[in-house]
Amino acid sequence: MLEITRPTLLLDENKCKRNIQRMTAKAERLQVKLIPHMKTPQSVEVAGWCANEGVTAITVSSLKMAEYFAKAGWKDITVAFPVNVLEIGVINELLQMGVDLKLFLLDEVVARKLNDGLSQPVKVLIELDAGYNRTGISTENMEDIALLAQTIVASDKLDLYGLYCHPGNTYQTHNIEEIRQIWAAAIRKMNLVRASLKAIQAELVVRMGDTPGCTLVEQMEGVDEISAGNFIFYDLVMNYLDVCNEEDIAVVMACPVVAKNSSRNEIIMHGGAVHFSKDHLFDEDQKKFFGEVVILAEDGWSPIIQGIRVKSLSQEHGVLLANDEIFDQIETGDVLGILPIHSCLTANLMKSYTTLDGRKIDHMEKAMT
Amino acid sequence: MLEITRPTLLLDENKCKRNIQRMTAKAERLQVKLIPHMKTPQSVEVAGWCANEGVTAITVSSLKMAEYFAKAGWKDITVAFPVNVLEIGVINELLQMGVDLKLFLLDEVVARKLNDGLSQPVKVLIELDAGYNRTGISTENMEDIALLAQTIVASDKLDLYGLYCHPGNTYQTHNIEEIRQIWAAAIRKMNLVRASLKAIQAELVVRMGDTPGCTLVEQMEGVDEISAGNFIFYDLVMNYLDVCNEEDIAVVMACPVVAKNSSRNEIIMHGGAVHFSKDHLFDEDQKKFFGEVVILAEDGWSPIIQGIRVKSLSQEHGVLLANDEIFDQIETGDVLGILPIHSCLTANLMKSYTTLDGRKIDHMEKAMT
Repeated sequence: MLEITRPTLLLDENKCKRNIQRMTAKAERLQVKLIPHMKTPQSVEVAGWCANEGVTAITVSSLKMAEYFAKAGWKDITVAFPVNVLEIGVINELLQMGVDLKLFLLDEVVARKLNDGLSQPVKVLIELDAGYNRTGISTENMEDIALLAQTIVASDKLDLYGLYCHPGNTYQTHNIEEIRQIWAAAIRKMNLVRASLKAIQAELVVRMGDTPGCTLVEQMEGVDEISAGNFIFYDLVMNYLDVCNEEDIAVVMACPVVAKNSSRNEIIMHGGAVHFSKDHLFDEDQKKFFGEVVILAEDGWSPIIQGIRVKSLSQEHGVLLANDEIFDQIETGDVLGILPIHSCLTANLMKSYTTLDGRKIDHMEKAMT
Repeated sequence: MLEITRPTLLLDENKCKRNIQRMTAKAERLQVKLIPHMKTPQSVEVAGWCANEGVTAITVSSLKMAEYFAKAGWKDITVAFPVNVLEIGVINELLQMGVDLKLFLLDEVVARKLNDGLSQPVKVLIELDAGYNRTGISTENMEDIALLAQTIVASDKLDLYGLYCHPGNTYQTHNIEEIRQIWAAAIRKMNLVRASLKAIQAELVVRMGDTPGCTLVEQMEGVDEISAGNFIFYDLVMNYLDVCNEEDIAVVMACPVVAKNSSRNEIIMHGGAVHFSKDHLFDEDQKKFFGEVVILAEDGWSPIIQGIRVKSLSQEHGVLLANDEIFDQIETGDVLGILPIHSCLTANLMKSYTTLDGRKIDHMEKAMT
């Protein structure tokens, strides 16, 4: 058994590899190219597990993350974030390192500034919005899309590679059918845009990202590439959306119990906002909770324990509320397993993984700090 | 002007030092000992600014943080978190380094385990709860308090130093009067406990922590020591509670603008949950927001700009909603200043400070990663 004395992020290598294998197999079956998003694991070793399954290209969420993976030898990297023209220096460095970089554009002014600052050509995708309403040009706004496409095509250093859409509104759904409907509508809109741009650029890939859709949608005609990331670990958000099973969640926080309050059936653990961030879900009574509890064992962890949940988090404290039976079974000095609400933010804060056999696995926030 | 290309946490050294001076002056005036909490800055350099004002003892929120400050030469360190018996090794190491360590106990079983594991004596404070309902023995529960005090006094390595209370319910108040009432009630309860324990331990210090109380309460009779931390930077939470003025907030995030959406008057910046965490406040219409906007200048930043706020955060994206006038003035490639909702969590994620003249200041999460 691992000796755990402090909040520690455990990674079940087998679950994680199984999640990766399932997605690569699906991509192969549906004949789409999987370009997994590394914003969740932020780890060269985990990216290597993807490479073992045939993955040759990855997605990242910042140029800093692109630098981290480029230094580790990755050559095909998409930065899934609107181009920040202030970071032109890093973009040119990555190109000079021989990275086949792919950038997101959604603004004509930025496209011109990018072109002016580039030392050599770069591939770009136009980021479109099919209804999520975060970033991207609305797929309804053909005028702006065409203008941007023309600007890109007319430039000397921008190579228009494709169209991208992150239908993140799948996170706000209540059932699988809604997720499939969102994707069907988005695929239709993306292909209408592709058809409209044919005169400007004959060949364009359509790329879509988001774990709910990539996991559940079976109808991917019209999509060439997918770029989900959370599926590598999954988490309680995905479990509550019925996107994954509880057993698919590949990371768990190990948190020492430091106090018990018998008058309120509350247990205090070391594990707070600096370990988990502050994401929450709502229970049956519409009360916020911040994690579910499992029992840690040598070879992994138990199913979710009923009758206990993380009810609040402050900076270092986590407060659990338990029923009488569970409360009596837990002692100070025990180490509880807590399934995270949002694995990406938890991993980002923990900056390291420990496998079940005690091996440390790298995370960018450690390597690049 | 600093050259900023990525999300960067700026620290106004003068504001920070003024905050520290104001609190040390107040502590001196009210004859209480200030033992500032380093969970907010987590920085040896900022702790040094406190030392320059006469501070000789600090509070930390974890044993990891105690190690960081002990290595930098701090000798009087309180760990304001229930003792985690699994970390007995670190406790003994700190004692061996000659640190005058002070630990929190609130459980008789833990007190016995701690005593059994210690290699040399350590001072302890009993953590009490005067109404916040997070950790600590309720001040109403004299039976458990006396039992714990007796166990400590009867042990061979635990030295009962004092009583501690964090009246964190001051964060949930609506005006200064309520904060003062919470403190008055807590001070009264703490002193009743002290009086009741007189037969067990003749001398006990009463220590209270929390920035709202330490900033606003003028009546501190019956309190010997205070241990607030957030006052070193303050933030929007403290400003909205009227605990500090906007000009007292000593840190600001600098975030590049990467896109504009004119159909929704939204501006996308690089600055998301991995930079700010996910704390929020509510605006006049009870809508969540995640930060206020200021204009950065060479010597600091402007007052809060009306008509624009951070309306949502995802992992790397921040979405700002602006009125027409402000929207038109902001361009991609600009760098906006964002006052954080919660400075402790923002600093913890950013892991470094940049002063207005471009100097880097240490943060534990960088040094200890």
